[in-house]
Amino acid sequence: MADYLPTEPYRGTRDFLPEDMSIRSQVFERLYEVIESYGYQRYDGPILEPTEIYETKSSQEIVEQQLYTLTDRGGRRLSLRPEMTPSVARMIAGNVSKLNFPVRWYSHPNCHRYERPQRGRVREHWQINVDLFGSSSSAVEVEFVELVHDMMAGLGASRDMYELRVSDRVLLNAILSEVLEIPDDMLHDAARLLDRWQKYPQETLAADAAEIGLTDKQFEKLGEVVAAGVDVLNDLSQEVRDHSMLMQVLDTGARDLITFDPLIVRGFDYYTSTVFEVFDADPANRRSLFGGGRYDNLIGMFSPQQVPGFGFGMGDVTILDFLRTHGLLPDAHSDVDAVVIATEAALFDTGRLAARRLRAAGIRTTMPLEVRKLGKEISRADRAGARVVIIVGQQDWAAEQVTVRDLVSGDQQQVTLDQVAPAVQAVLEQPAR
Amino acid sequence: MADYLPTEPYRGTRDFLPEDMSIRSQVFERLYEVIESYGYQRYDGPILEPTEIYETKSSQEIVEQQLYTLTDRGGRRLSLRPEMTPSVARMIAGNVSKLNFPVRWYSHPNCHRYERPQRGRVREHWQINVDLFGSSSSAVEVEFVELVHDMMAGLGASRDMYELRVSDRVLLNAILSEVLEIPDDMLHDAARLLDRWQKYPQETLAADAAEIGLTDKQFEKLGEVVAAGVDVLNDLSQEVRDHSMLMQVLDTGARDLITFDPLIVRGFDYYTSTVFEVFDADPANRRSLFGGGRYDNLIGMFSPQQVPGFGFGMGDVTILDFLRTHGLLPDAHSDVDAVVIATEAALFDTGRLAARRLRAAGIRTTMPLEVRKLGKEISRADRAGARVVIIVGQQDWAAEQVTVRDLVSGDQQQVTLDQVAPAVQAVLEQPAR
Repeated sequence: MADYLPTEPYRGTRDFLPEDMSIRSQVFERLYEVIESYGYQRYDGPILEPTEIYETKSSQEIVEQQLYTLTDRGGRRLSLRPEMTPSVARMIAGNVSKLNFPVRWYSHPNCHRYERPQRGRVREHWQINVDLFGSSSSAVEVEFVELVHDMMAGLGASRDMYELRVSDRVLLNAILSEVLEIPDDMLHDAARLLDRWQKYPQETLAADAAEIGLTDKQFEKLGEVVAAGVDVLNDLSQEVRDHSMLMQVLDTGARDLITFDPLIVRGFDYYTSTVFEVFDADPANRRSLFGGGRYDNLIGMFSPQQVPGFGFGMGDVTILDFLRTHGLLPDAHSDVDAVVIATEAALFDTGRLAARRLRAAGIRTTMPLEVRKLGKEISRADRAGARVVIIVGQQDWAAEQVTVRDLVSGDQQQVTLDQVAPAVQAVLEQPAR
Repeated sequence: MADYLPTEPYRGTRDFLPEDMSIRSQVFERLYEVIESYGYQRYDGPILEPTEIYETKSSQEIVEQQLYTLTDRGGRRLSLRPEMTPSVARMIAGNVSKLNFPVRWYSHPNCHRYERPQRGRVREHWQINVDLFGSSSSAVEVEFVELVHDMMAGLGASRDMYELRVSDRVLLNAILSEVLEIPDDMLHDAARLLDRWQKYPQETLAADAAEIGLTDKQFEKLGEVVAAGVDVLNDLSQEVRDHSMLMQVLDTGARDLITFDPLIVRGFDYYTSTVFEVFDADPANRRSLFGGGRYDNLIGMFSPQQVPGFGFGMGDVTILDFLRTHGLLPDAHSDVDAVVIATEAALFDTGRLAARRLRAAGIRTTMPLEVRKLGKEISRADRAGARVVIIVGQQDWAAEQVTVRDLVSGDQQQVTLDQVAPAVQAVLEQPAR
């Protein structure tokens, strides 16, 4: 026996056969449409980037454990992008003098991380990235809050299926230092503790708290802050409130669209004010679907200029999983509307003329590649999802006509070549049942 | 001075800022539309593949000089795909029992090759791949000939701008062995000589011919074959003619769509019959734009089954260059139709309501993020390419109205929130001048 190479894709990556691809495309095209309705412009960049741009800014976990890195034949160290943000920061920095800020950009790159494959974790995923650069106005936050809700609505999700939870680094730091009186050098550890709050039992958290140096009283108070939710903000000074983007959002009509949640911390170090996450509201499946926030100096490693920004990334695995759980996945599209069947080889060129007319009218049309029994070809057309067959037979064609048959109703009619496209179009516009 | 990282993309790769991305997207969306009008289904696959699938089948040049290869943390050797064909062969082989052949598939992957960057050569390019698997009928050739012409027409190219040149390995081998009496073990070298025919002067070719063992007479005859074009086929035996896909195509109406050219050899070893290339017809720029052909055992490294196929790849660099040369590049699209301007912060929530109505109607709408002078905002909207501004001012809004202004005609009208989307739509449907 010969040795054959395996046909599975590399572990943690996925083949998208046409059916899966149709679903993925439909989901993301809906999202593109919503994002573009907000005036965002699509961009794209290389998948290989100099490794340094990740070493400078990405999380330690990414750099030390998850990066796919290679050295090219010229000795340059390159990595497959694990996230899009450093790339877009590089592009903004490189074009900062010719861009008219604010700019609204989005992209849909594939990103690679070396992960242990498991539910919701893959090594190559497709992530929509949406960013607004060049504005420090809290109107940016409002725009993103509305955009996120419209994206979820575009996917068919109703408001009870998910929650948009927000926090703010400025508020969080103020709560920790003003209300809990935690010293500055312990803020980072305390924030990490909040980030872990819902994932671990109280005893573990208490032990962690003790380890980072919190008193029992501070730990208790932290629990009260978490329980108090938005009310905790009442205790903050006016100066903090003025400085917080989120407080300004809470003064607008957008306040009803968000839930304040001090537990939203997010892992990346670059967020400087508002942070948000969208959660599946299903109690059995309470996962973060995606999130993002405000960063005030993202391009710092490339340029002395300060360009504030706000953005988020939404990965395909998590969102497709959410849609599946809630019964919102679209069906795969059929890829053919009409099949032109020539009943004998001599009529093949005539069939091609008919197919040509149909395609020119935007009707997706195939022709069988060999002459087989008519009944068999009609069944094949039906199975392939075609609504119409166009039969090119000797007798009809002697009168310069072809037969158009609606595979749903069974109705058929003889038409000339000039009439074939309008006749098929008319059938396609009729409801399937 | 601080040290900043460079903002250029990795050598041989490209950033697509929104303007470039708009052009690339428009060009390829036209191609997708044409390809889908033939019933082809889109698929996708991972960018990382096991290195072995290239070592087995790709050209020596790719494997030894051009592959980007890395070893993952589990010790697996992986490569960034240099071409899509091995990936699609893997997918077909892995799903051969559940696919309904013939299948028509297309994809649009980015591929990586370590090349010395120069005109038309980059290290990351985007390549449309179109393949039909599972049919040995010459109707496949006819379908591809028509598809290629329709793709070029879809890009705005007229028939005089390019040439579709075809040959056939079966015919080529027969010409070399029957007409030129070249022995079997020299066929490969003789084919390579033809491949180089137009790129080198006669003396170089003559020297090469001598080196591979051709007689002067055979070399002279080779020149006659090249000069004779399609007439050379008259000298071939009926058996060869029956066995050649291309001869069958020349018996159909599609014969007028192609030019026989024995110099079309193509580098890859896997083509087994028809091969074609599309050339720029501009004498100053006589380059191959893209090409492909028939392969009869592409999945052989993955499976004992034989699945014949036909396909081609079309890269973005060459085709965009062709379109640029012929003045066919589309303009970048504007990314916004309407701008909603609230004249004071208190009216911001009202402006959002108007923007919401517009976006729900599919109108791409932005809102300024701060309140600035109205005239200044209107100029910004105009520069951004918006056709309409919607002004939300104190006085209008007291009467529950907003102002819709056409930035082209200067006409404006007061409408209620319910009327704002239809009113803007009506303006957008009017010609720009």
